[in-house]
Amino acid sequence: MSSFSHTDDKGKANMVDVGHKPLQRRSATAEGFIRLSEHTLNLIRENEMKKGDVLTVAEVAGIQAAKETSRLIPLCHPLQLTKVDVKTRVTETGVRVTAMARCTGQTGVEMEALTAVSVALLTIYDMCKAVDKEMVIGEISLIEKIKTDL
Amino acid sequence: MSSFSHTDDKGKANMVDVGHKPLQRRSATAEGFIRLSEHTLNLIRENEMKKGDVLTVAEVAGIQAAKETSRLIPLCHPLQLTKVDVKTRVTETGVRVTAMARCTGQTGVEMEALTAVSVALLTIYDMCKAVDKEMVIGEISLIEKIKTDL
Amino acid sequence: MSSFSHTDDKGKANMVDVGHKPLQRRSATAEGFIRLSEHTLNLIRENEMKKGDVLTVAEVAGIQAAKETSRLIPLCHPLQLTKVDVKTRVTETGVRVTAMARCTGQTGVEMEALTAVSVALLTIYDMCKAVDKEMVIGEISLIEKIKTDL
Amino acid sequence: MSSFSHTDDKGKANMVDVGHKPLQRRSATAEGFIRLSEHTLNLIRENEMKKGDVLTVAEVAGIQAAKETSRLIPLCHPLQLTKVDVKTRVTETGVRVTAMARCTGQTGVEMEALTAVSVALLTIYDMCKAVDKEMVIGEISLIEKIKTDL
Amino acid sequence: MSSFSHTDDKGKANMVDVGHKPLQRRSATAEGFIRLSEHTLNLIRENEMKKGDVLTVAEVAGIQAAKETSRLIPLCHPLQLTKVDVKTRVTETGVRVTAMARCTGQTGVEMEALTAVSVALLTIYDMCKAVDKEMVIGEISLIEKIKTDL
Amino acid sequence: MSSFSHTDDKGKANMVDVGHKPLQRRSATAEGFIRLSEHTLNLIRENEMKKGDVLTVAEVAGIQAAKETSRLIPLCHPLQLTKVDVKTRVTETGVRVTAMARCTGQTGVEMEALTAVSVALLTIYDMCKAVDKEMVIGEISLIEKIKTDL
Repeated sequence: MSSFSHTDDKGKANMVDVGHKPLQRRSATAEGFIRLSEHTLNLIRENEMKKGDVLTVAEVAGIQAAKETSRLIPLCHPLQLTKVDVKTRVTETGVRVTAMARCTGQTGVEMEALTAVSVALLTIYDMCKAVDKEMVIGEISLIEKIKTDL
Repeated sequence: MSSFSHTDDKGKANMVDVGHKPLQRRSATAEGFIRLSEHTLNLIRENEMKKGDVLTVAEVAGIQAAKETSRLIPLCHPLQLTKVDVKTRVTETGVRVTAMARCTGQTGVEMEALTAVSVALLTIYDMCKAVDKEMVIGEISLIEKIKTDL
Repeated sequence: MSSFSHTDDKGKANMVDVGHKPLQRRSATAEGFIRLSEHTLNLIRENEMKKGDVLTVAEVAGIQAAKETSRLIPLCHPLQLTKVDVKTRVTETGVRVTAMARCTGQTGVEMEALTAVSVALLTIYDMCKAVDKEMVIGEISLIEKIKTDL
Repeated sequence: MSSFSHTDDKGKANMVDVGHKPLQRRSATAEGFIRLSEHTLNLIRENEMKKGDVLTVAEVAGIQAAKETSRLIPLCHPLQLTKVDVKTRVTETGVRVTAMARCTGQTGVEMEALTAVSVALLTIYDMCKAVDKEMVIGEISLIEKIKTDL
Repeated sequence: MSSFSHTDDKGKANMVDVGHKPLQRRSATAEGFIRLSEHTLNLIRENEMKKGDVLTVAEVAGIQAAKETSRLIPLCHPLQLTKVDVKTRVTETGVRVTAMARCTGQTGVEMEALTAVSVALLTIYDMCKAVDKEMVIGEISLIEKIKTDL
Repeated sequence: MSSFSHTDDKGKANMVDVGHKPLQRRSATAEGFIRLSEHTLNLIRENEMKKGDVLTVAEVAGIQAAKETSRLIPLCHPLQLTKVDVKTRVTETGVRVTAMARCTGQTGVEMEALTAVSVALLTIYDMCKAVDKEMVIGEISLIEKIKTDL
């Protein structure tokens, strides 16, 4: 039966040794969603029309958060990201955030993509909280994870 | 019609001026959920029985993330938190995280509570990702927000 | 003859004691400039017309940098900023950045305003460096500094 | 006509993909200047004679800031610097700061050198602001940028 | 029997609630020692004579570390330090570091003073490690802790 | 006579150039000790029996601190750690902390191991300071340092 990689046989926390794994091209894409009221969605659309900043601030916050992942998640390894892309899309019921991260390294970048999505969603929450008391963040999951040899 | 507090009349990003608001006792509680497979839940319960660390690491990561909120969310004000509490509870289908933050300040602490929940959930995701490929993080929302005069 | 507040009588570095100063409302405004080529300025104007992000990313970076000031400047005191505003303006020869910071505290916020300006200018440099090899950052100075009793 | 590497065809912010570029030895040197009053310059010279710390604190702050570059500039890639050197030189009218950064990586280190210069200059500003109200920071530019194959 | 303030009755980690404590002037002084070889001590004395930087870099690192305390120690509250002072003194057998921290706050600053001492000592270790393989850091303890009403 | 690698011939601080050194597998182990009262040791043992968190929080803080080393120690190079392990052991007179760090890089990881030990010990100090006024941290030293060719 498979077991946690981040705990030893006594169940104690453990940063896994990735030192003997080969360098590979790693890519991961994650997404998530924030449910917003009709009123808030109209304000966001209006802000977009005025060339306003709401969604751009969220995207920038997501990119920066990807670079903070190993400082936020205690057992994550530091990685040198070669690309991060965070995109937002207004839907009928909220905003969907998609983040893609890439690196050449010894371990995967899914936590970086998931952290970017989470912080971008929190940033939208922050910017809309004065007008919307019913927001819910959810559906945060990994969409794709790829590794290819150099 | 109410509008965003974090954008000016041209829709540009803006850190709201809270300098003239009174100091008040502020408290906020948020929660969220990560859906896990039966197998993963059994491993977590077993880890708990062995006095293992999985949920403690998530709680500690959440507490620390609350203190990072204003660095992660671009338009958040820095706050001096006087208390943070993060708790995890294993359910039939996953783990529920609840976070409470408090400060005496000029603006609310809901973003701190929500950030603590989000990072605790990401930490659980990180520790379980070797054994569970179907995890989804969601239901992140504010449960309670209180302000009382000094 | 007046002398440095940040060094003791042997000339050694020293974080000044501000603990006995009264709490006051503090505000500071700083500005700076980045000289750009005609070609780069056209690209920035075009980006603005497309609702692009160049100047917004710089403004967000400046706001976030203001919150990092006491971590970047060794003898700066940590402050709880109550407002930060960073604005960019395209001129005939480059981009002018203005930043305003406010707090209620025991020491001034000019370093926060100056740090916001500097990092916003560096961010513009970063985004334009693929197309402009002649950029110069300068004219960074304090425009106004105000303190008022509570 | 060349265009911004950090924006996509809609003008949206974008951390460029450097994952397919070869590892190369990268080096960059930047400089900048802070204009100081005669009185302040005399105090700095006197501090130097007393083996005081003013310029050393600025140099250390610059070295540390170089390591923070990817956290301050939103679209900068994280890099593993192999060397940073920051030097200050008192002139007739102020202090000139020169910074050199090196790494073996897939993208250049000019932003690291420029950030080191900017933060060293801000640190001098901070240490002199009690005695000099006319300081101006400027002339921040790239002096040299080298890449060589491994 | 007195018990830990940082754990609840189940022994789980807990950031103590200090929100109802009065604001007081807080001060703490800590010290520590690094044992060095005769050869290393001679190099440090020579560096001092040349107006070199070894001990200044350690003092600056200590001041900056004091400001990082709540980010390094998971259950520490964020504080607004009003003063930090770190001093080093070469003895017959090593270097003694003393750090003093002050704030006006609801909880003490001993962890800030102890963290400043620890990081200043680690910085000396780092700068001497090429020449001294027998260094030991120790005797880190609190010397004095004061609180006075406003 | 050997001299400091981190200072130039004028004794000025200097981040050593490691860019021409080969990539090697690096490993370092450090340890340290905190002396605790009989009463405090009993509380820690009791906390362990209740599956409490005191020592786990210290271990997690140590792992995270290892990743912060180059930000705390001014002349340390940034490294991509591939493994960190921090363990605590209750003795008759206190708690012993051992930390091991590994990377594949151009310079050693002893500062990372020593920083992990120091911050884990400070975290124990923080959690026990309400009940123990006589704690002393010491005996922090390097136990082993290994480099092997790839």
